[in-house]
Amino acid sequence: MSGISEFFLYLADRAEHVRQVIKPTLEAGKIVISDRFSDATVAYQGYGRGLDIAWIEALNEKATQGILPEVTFLLDINPDLAKQRAKKKDRMEREEIDFHQRVRQGYLELAKLHPERIKIMNGEGSPEEIHQAIRKIISRHL
Amino acid sequence: MSGISEFFLYLADRAEHVRQVIKPTLEAGKIVISDRFSDATVAYQGYGRGLDIAWIEALNEKATQGILPEVTFLLDINPDLAKQRAKKKDRMEREEIDFHQRVRQGYLELAKLHPERIKIMNGEGSPEEIHQAIRKIISRHL
Repeated sequence: MSGISEFFLYLADRAEHVRQVIKPTLEAGKIVISDRFSDATVAYQGYGRGLDIAWIEALNEKATQGILPEVTFLLDINPDLAKQRAKKKDRMEREEIDFHQRVRQGYLELAKLHPERIKIMNGEGSPEEIHQAIRKIISRHL
Repeated sequence: MSGISEFFLYLADRAEHVRQVIKPTLEAGKIVISDRFSDATVAYQGYGRGLDIAWIEALNEKATQGILPEVTFLLDINPDLAKQRAKKKDRMEREEIDFHQRVRQGYLELAKLHPERIKIMNGEGSPEEIHQAIRKIISRHL
């Protein structure tokens, strides 16, 4: 599949997810925790596949109705180590290591642009260590 | 499904269709005949669902890599009659008559904007009549 088709499919998914789940949940005063959101589209389809970043951001904005997380945890890990750790491999995980290097670079650039929102966590730590580090930051928001 | 999600799904489909089928076929010097193309997105998602027309056109252009038909036949029919004729009803055909009125209006507006490309045919004629009328126009392009 081409990068642009993949991008449109993610936008369709995101628009529907926001409309059906995220927006009504936020409006009910609840907290939403999401595994990947619009930053992932910038990192994977922008940095990974090479689509124009400003264009992706404009369409992300439309698809999400402007909704952005208050805090985002970026679990950063060396792509070589991530590849060893990954058990089930989906379409993205079967990509070459170069692709994952570009995606990581994308996420780190986003973290640099939005330091108040995106917190870089050491993804090479144990689950317990990462859990504790996230709890510490989350507690400031509650 | 929301209009915007539907729109992104059509864009994904169109981008893939152009890349995998239409572009290589044209590049091989062959003729492509397609049942619905980017005008349908303007008519259905723009006029029908109410999404912004200029925005749809900009994204259509990206998805199709700027490819447009040399000639387009618009088989125009009163939506009430079309509804009676349609045997299998897909998601679009199950829509209210108002929706189909707006879609028809959209197609007619497009034909007005691009009279050199879009030929309005009387879709209420018999298949044989429509066939002959299309042959007559097509023969000028061959």
